[in-house]
This record gives sequence, structure tokens and C-alpha cells, in this order.
Amino acid sequence: MPDPRFFERRGPHRLASLAELSGATLSDPADADFDVADVAPLHLAGAREISFLDNRLYVDAFRTSRAGACIVAAEHVAAAPRGMRLLVAKSPYLAYALVATAFYPAQAVAAGIDSRACVDPSAKIGAGAVIGPGAVVEAQAEIGARCRIASNAVIGRAVRLGEDCEVGAGATLSHCLIGARALIHPGVRIGQRGFGFAPARTGYVKVPQLGRVIVGDDVEIGANTTIDRGAGPDTVIGDGCMIDNLVQIGHNVTLGPGCILVAQVGISGSTSLGERAMLGGQAGLTGHLKIGAGAQIAAQSGVMRDVAPGERVMGSPAQPIREHLKQVAFLSRLARKKGD
Amino acid sequence: MPDPRFFERRGPHRLASLAELSGATLSDPADADFDVADVAPLHLAGAREISFLDNRLYVDAFRTSRAGACIVAAEHVAAAPRGMRLLVAKSPYLAYALVATAFYPAQAVAAGIDSRACVDPSAKIGAGAVIGPGAVVEAQAEIGARCRIASNAVIGRAVRLGEDCEVGAGATLSHCLIGARALIHPGVRIGQRGFGFAPARTGYVKVPQLGRVIVGDDVEIGANTTIDRGAGPDTVIGDGCMIDNLVQIGHNVTLGPGCILVAQVGISGSTSLGERAMLGGQAGLTGHLKIGAGAQIAAQSGVMRDVAPGERVMGSPAQPIREHLKQVAFLSRLARKKGD
Amino acid sequence: MPDPRFFERRGPHRLASLAELSGATLSDPADADFDVADVAPLHLAGAREISFLDNRLYVDAFRTSRAGACIVAAEHVAAAPRGMRLLVAKSPYLAYALVATAFYPAQAVAAGIDSRACVDPSAKIGAGAVIGPGAVVEAQAEIGARCRIASNAVIGRAVRLGEDCEVGAGATLSHCLIGARALIHPGVRIGQRGFGFAPARTGYVKVPQLGRVIVGDDVEIGANTTIDRGAGPDTVIGDGCMIDNLVQIGHNVTLGPGCILVAQVGISGSTSLGERAMLGGQAGLTGHLKIGAGAQIAAQSGVMRDVAPGERVMGSPAQPIREHLKQVAFLSRLARKKGD
Repeated sequence: MPDPRFFERRGPHRLASLAELSGATLSDPADADFDVADVAPLHLAGAREISFLDNRLYVDAFRTSRAGACIVAAEHVAAAPRGMRLLVAKSPYLAYALVATAFYPAQAVAAGIDSRACVDPSAKIGAGAVIGPGAVVEAQAEIGARCRIASNAVIGRAVRLGEDCEVGAGATLSHCLIGARALIHPGVRIGQRGFGFAPARTGYVKVPQLGRVIVGDDVEIGANTTIDRGAGPDTVIGDGCMIDNLVQIGHNVTLGPGCILVAQVGISGSTSLGERAMLGGQAGLTGHLKIGAGAQIAAQSGVMRDVAPGERVMGSPAQPIREHLKQVAFLSRLARKKGD
Repeated sequence: MPDPRFFERRGPHRLASLAELSGATLSDPADADFDVADVAPLHLAGAREISFLDNRLYVDAFRTSRAGACIVAAEHVAAAPRGMRLLVAKSPYLAYALVATAFYPAQAVAAGIDSRACVDPSAKIGAGAVIGPGAVVEAQAEIGARCRIASNAVIGRAVRLGEDCEVGAGATLSHCLIGARALIHPGVRIGQRGFGFAPARTGYVKVPQLGRVIVGDDVEIGANTTIDRGAGPDTVIGDGCMIDNLVQIGHNVTLGPGCILVAQVGISGSTSLGERAMLGGQAGLTGHLKIGAGAQIAAQSGVMRDVAPGERVMGSPAQPIREHLKQVAFLSRLARKKGD
Repeated sequence: MPDPRFFERRGPHRLASLAELSGATLSDPADADFDVADVAPLHLAGAREISFLDNRLYVDAFRTSRAGACIVAAEHVAAAPRGMRLLVAKSPYLAYALVATAFYPAQAVAAGIDSRACVDPSAKIGAGAVIGPGAVVEAQAEIGARCRIASNAVIGRAVRLGEDCEVGAGATLSHCLIGARALIHPGVRIGQRGFGFAPARTGYVKVPQLGRVIVGDDVEIGANTTIDRGAGPDTVIGDGCMIDNLVQIGHNVTLGPGCILVAQVGISGSTSLGERAMLGGQAGLTGHLKIGAGAQIAAQSGVMRDVAPGERVMGSPAQPIREHLKQVAFLSRLARKKGD
């Protein structure tokens, strides 16, 4: 189903082997030898394809799906259409990720530096790295083994990338040290000077921004996201953080491991997030805050105070989610009753 | 008036011919032979220039304008200063668009592939296409006739562009099929993988993103906007959609024809918009929603539920616009009365 | 302390000379000859380093800092740890900016046009300018003396840059005239056509965008920010404006001198800001507004009406800050009292 112009398929795979690699269970062991040709969404899948159900919103699509096989949670087995083969998994989405990766593993690219790339002689390029046309790698930069630097990306002076990183087309990195397996999307900006200036009689005086951006392992950074370097301390992105598109991260911000930042989030300078904090889309945080581990901040929230570990907040100004929803409902009722 | 360093003027044009091409009516037929030299804004226009009035906010500027001619709606004719020649139009803004285009048609650019562009031999380049220095066109890409690919733009493997598209400087496209006459501004990111991962014991597992971005005809996409490719289904942008700068469109989102998205809008994954839906600036939509045809969502709204066709909503969480405004007014009155 | 891979240090500097260049006063004249090796944040500074305290949030860090010297306001002198040398300044942040600049002045770069840059023969390049690999300078462009155009930036036809400007990697400029000393960060988009189209029976008709972007002196523009050119009038950015990352500025917008726009702000077309107006992060302004000099608009505010000079507003819709906070508090109390 995926367009072969863009995606290279492996397979087919026996249903039993998909069960094994994804940690799922065959609902009917007799289906073990069924050959699966491909993955596909519920509403598009055909008799030789496998799909998944992970969101109650799509139970109806599941009921009428023509998929030959499907990955589901135990609770939805009964809703399956007749004849559909089932893989039962605790997390169907995780199992699907593993199954889909079996059909579509990372595509191999021929290693080498394109003749139209511009790599400074003092840069160190790891074995198996791919550097595309128009990409620029400045002096003293270090590119880890098997990194892929796409067309027209710019890796600034002394920047260091760990092994197996991908840097998307047109992304620009400076003043930063990046861990292994980073996935940096097109147009990302890392390491430019932060927004630091002091008012003086004659205008604003720029404050030198003397820190770096330190990015851990296994981080994903979405398209056109901007991460400023530290002002003195570093800006730090912990291992395994997932950052969506068009996110703004100010100088000195610290993200603990595994944080999730949805698109268009903005974090002002010197705010820190604990491990696995989650920020919904367009949420904004003022500076110098401490957001505890596991805190959840709803989309569009405006956070102006510290948030405790595990606390869930919403609204602008953000407050505990239950309180916020109560106020919204209360105001709605009141205005309806007394309003003209 | 437009700076000749940047804009190449044609003309002069007789007022009668401007009336004809714009569908407007000469207020006084005796003005038919008046030669118009150029277009200009109301407050800057001189005796040989034509301007337009389309917004009540500028009626005062209209009354005191020295423009030799002006395009107005019938209701504002009486407010015209003495001696100003008038073209009367139902939509002065539309008529102005056509008049201004007569003075400033699309500038011709010499066709050809710059010697510093990097075009894969397997790519197909249509007749009359222009490919600028530093632009990269990867294997199997198809560039339609008369397309213009600006400097340092990157057209990924197998991407297809219809005829007469413009791709701005530094924009990057992958995993997408684009219709005719698309206007893609600088820094746009289309087709990168969406924000898809499944929590596992060891961190997050990336879910392969196996869809594409399908863009219809006559679409405009603003600077630094990001459109992720589908996760399995495609991300679809309907014919004639107008998308402003810094907009985020998540995987699997579907926009019907003629939608208008103002700057910094964010749309989460799998949400669909009906024909001609309009989203004000910085509005945010959560995932898996259905927004009906012609729905209007006010700026900064936070939409967390489906919106019916033609419905107008506002606020965060968004609610019917009248209800929202009533609550805002009600709270304001109440706090003033009882507040300390 | 700053990473020598990225930052080149000058010094050491005598404490007396740092006092002099920053306008600060030695708390104990006996410290005049103390040699300062470097700058560092309070919590990281050592015995030979100078730090600063400018935010009450960090008084505790100040009390326990091991910095050899520190720049403080008079009010915090008493809280200093024993043995710490003090420079007393009215604005410690401004004094620190000057001290840090003494240690880390702008780094020299060898002038010249890289052989992989693409400069049109008709462009004028000022003395001492630096043009990086992959940068494109189109016909008739004028680049002022000592400008630095980073890798893969694109300077469009007839664009003019004053002296000592920096244009970051991958930034693209067209239809604009830029003053002296502009600092334009990576990925900035200046001068693309604004969001202008008129509904017609057959779809939307594009309105030619015939203005320019005029940027004054000493302006900073953050990464991936977008500034559209005027529709007829120009878009104008006054001298000394400080614009953060991912900001959207629509066509015809006018910023007076010294305005501050924090990240992700959006300003719709034809709105004007007076001198030194300040907009907090993610604030949004609708079009055709007049924001007075010195007005302050809080983060995430949604401004739909004019704002008087010096007025402070907050909320969406924005209202006077005191009124907004009163309403927030009032609603909170009421919901708590009567809510279920």
C-alpha cells in the first residue's frame, strides 16, 4: 500500500513471525502460516495486509475493515469482522510499530561524501557517513559513523554528532554536541545565540551567549524547530526526548530524559523539565520555572508557575486540570442562566 | 510607486481597460481615456495612480487621498474627494487584484538549470523550468513544465511537481505529490516523517510513517510552514487551499478545497477540514476531529471537539462564538461589580 | 568556562578595568588588581571567575557561589558570601554584558568570498565581507562592508544590506532593504509575498504584493522568523528592534524603534507598534491595530483592539492586566465556592 516510489518494502512475512517480533499473540494458532504482504490503515487494508486498532474512535472502521489481519487489544477481539486474523497485543500501537518496521526497515543509502558537499579538511567524518550535495561541514566538526547529513544542511565549526544521526535537508547546527541516533528534521535550527540583551541608554546591548546545546541520545527534533544555545550554562535536551515541529526552546532550558513536546510549544529561558514531562501543542512556559517529572501540560496552556511532579495543568494561566474544567463549565452555566 | 529594483511595471493602462479587465464600472464614462501609470496605497497615491478602498477603517484615508483614480464599492462613492475618478466594483479588493496584476504580471525568468544546481540524471525536468543555484533535485523526481525551483531548495527522491509551480529558496520537499500552480514559499518543509512513536519499556519506538503528502492544484503554502507526511493514509491538502506562514499540519490531516489557514495555526494528526473551512491565526486543533465545510474558527481558539459545517467557534476550549463572547462579557461585568 | 571549541577568550582582565569598562564600582578598592580569568554562571563559577546576579530567583545561588568576583546591585551586597569580590552596578545584567564582551569579543573571520558561493557579477560586495560556501547573492544585490553571509543563505535580487550585518546559515532575503549591524539568524525568511488574495467565483485570486521590507539599524531577527513584504506600503522594522525566534510579521506591519517581540508572536497585516512596545511570547495581534509606544502585551494575549501608549494588557481577548487578573481570581474563587 505505501507508495513504492517512496518506500521500499521487505517481505512477505508469516503472521507467526510478526507475532514473535512484536511480542503479540496469535488469536488463532492456525493462522501462523498466513503470509502478510504489507501494512495498511484499517479503511484501506486488503486481504493480504495487516492493520491495527489502537484508538476507540476507529472501532467502527475496525468492524468493517477488510484487512486480512489486524493487531488489537484483547478488549476489541470480539468486535472483529468474520475471518479477520488477529494478533493480540497489550499495546497494539507498539506492536504495529515493530511490524511496520519489519516491512519497512530504514533504507540503505550509499555511503560517501557527495562531490558537491563542502567539507572542511579538518572535520572528522566517521565510517559509512553520507553527506549530501550542498551540505557544509565546517572546521573541526566531528560526524559520527553512519550519520546522514542531507542536502544543504550546515554543520558548524566544532559541532559533534554521535553515531547514526540523521540531519535533514537545510537544517543548521552550531555550538552543539549531539548524541547518537539523533533524528533532526529539515529546517531545524540548533545553537544560534539566545535572546539576550540588556537595555542601556543608547539601545540594547547584546549579552554574549557563551553556552552550548547538549543533546542526548535517541532524540527526535521536528521540522523548523529552534533551540538556542545557553547564555552561560548550556541548553540541555535529555536522552530520548521527542520534539515536534516548530517548537521554540530558549537558552538554558533543560529537558530531562523522555520529554514529549508537541508542535509549536514554546519554552522560555532557564526553565527546566523533569523526566518524561509532556507538553501539549502550542503550550507556552515562561522562564525560570521548574516543571516536575511526569508533569502533563495541556495544549495551549500558559504556564507561569512551577508545576509539581506528576501534576496535570491546563488553561492560561495554567491551573490543575480539574479546577480549570470546573471553571469553564461553571462560567458556561452561569452565563447561560443570567446572560441576556 | 512599487520599487523598480524589485518590481517590473507594465503600462500605462487606460482607465476603461482597467474597468474591463477587473469587471468594474466607470463611475463617469468621460474618464475612459484617463491614462493610469501605476497602483499605489490610498495615502501614497498621486494624480496618475489608482488605489482602492476595501475596508471601512480606511474611509478617512480615502476622503483625503490624492489618488487620480480609485476602485470602490457603490456605498463609498459619495465619500470620494473631488476630482477622483472612480471604478465601482462589487469587490474592490478583487478588482484591485486584477488591476494590479495588469501592471505587475508575473516576472519572466530565463528558463534553464543553473550550473550550480544538482539535478539527478534520472529526474525529469519539464520544458521551460528554472532551477536555481544550489538547488537539489533527487533521483526520479518530476518537475513540471515552467516550474521555478529557487536557490538551495531541495526536491527529494520521486517527488512530483505539476506545471507552473514555484518552490521558494531553501524549501525542502520529500514524499509528496504536488499539483499544478503551487506557490511554496521559502523554508517550507513538506513530507518529513510525522510525530509518531510508541512508548516501550526502553524508551520510545518510532512508528514508520508510510504515507505521503498530496497537494492539490493552486495551493499556496507560507514561509517556514511544516506539513508532515501521513502515517499510513496520506496527508491531503485540497485544491486552492491558502496556508499562511509558520503553520503546522500533522500526519494524516485532510484539508478540503479552498481552506484558509492563517499564520501559526496548528492541526494535530488525523483531523479533517471540510471545504472552505477558515482558521484564524494561532488556532490549534487536537487530533482526530472533523471540522465541517465552511466552519470558521477564530484566532487563538483551541478546538477539542468536532465543529459542524458552517459553525463559528471561538475561545479555548472553543465554543460557539456568541456563547463565548457572552461569557467574556458576563465575567467582565461580574468581576467589576463584585471584585475587591 | 565557555567551551574553547566554540568560543575564543581574551584576557585575563584586572577587576578594576572590568569595573571601568562596565560602569560598575569596586565594592573594595583593594580588589582592583585581582586578575579575572573568565566569566561563568553563579553555580559554576570558580575562584578566578566573575559572575553576576540580576534576578531575585538566584539570590540563594549567589549566597553559595564560589565565584571569585560578582557583579551585583547595591541591595544584594550584604548577601554576598565571604571573600567574594564585588562590582556594584545599577544594572548588573548590562554590566555583565560589557564584561563578557571584553572576554569574548566578536570573533574575527577571514574576509572573502568562498569559491563555492554563487555571487552574481552585478552584485556589489563591500570591503571585508565574508560570503560562505553555498551562499547565493543575486543580481544587483548590495552587501555592505564587513557583512557576513553564512553558508547556504540566499540574498535575493537587488536586496541591500548595510555595513556589518550577519545573515545566518540558510536564511533567505528578498524584496528588502536592511540597515547596518542587523543580526539575522539562521532560517529567517524576509520579503516573500504576504498572505493576500481575494475570493472570486473560481477560487482565490492572488493580490500582487508590491511593497518591500524595510529594516532599520541594529535589528536582531530570531531563527526561522518570517517577515512578509508589504502589499503596497512597506513592512517596516524600526531601528533596534529585538525579534525572537519563530515570530510571524504580516504584510504592512510597522514596528517603531526598540520594540521587543518574544518567540512565536504573530502580528497580522497592517498593524503598527509604537516605539519600545513589548510583546510576550505567543501573543497574537489581529490586523489594522494601533499599539501605542511602550505598550506591554503579556504572553499568549490575543489583541483585537487598539492598545494605548504605555497600556499593559493580558488575556485573550486582551484587556487591562489588572482587570484580567481580577477576573481570573474571581472565577477561581466562585467556582471553588459553588462548584460541585
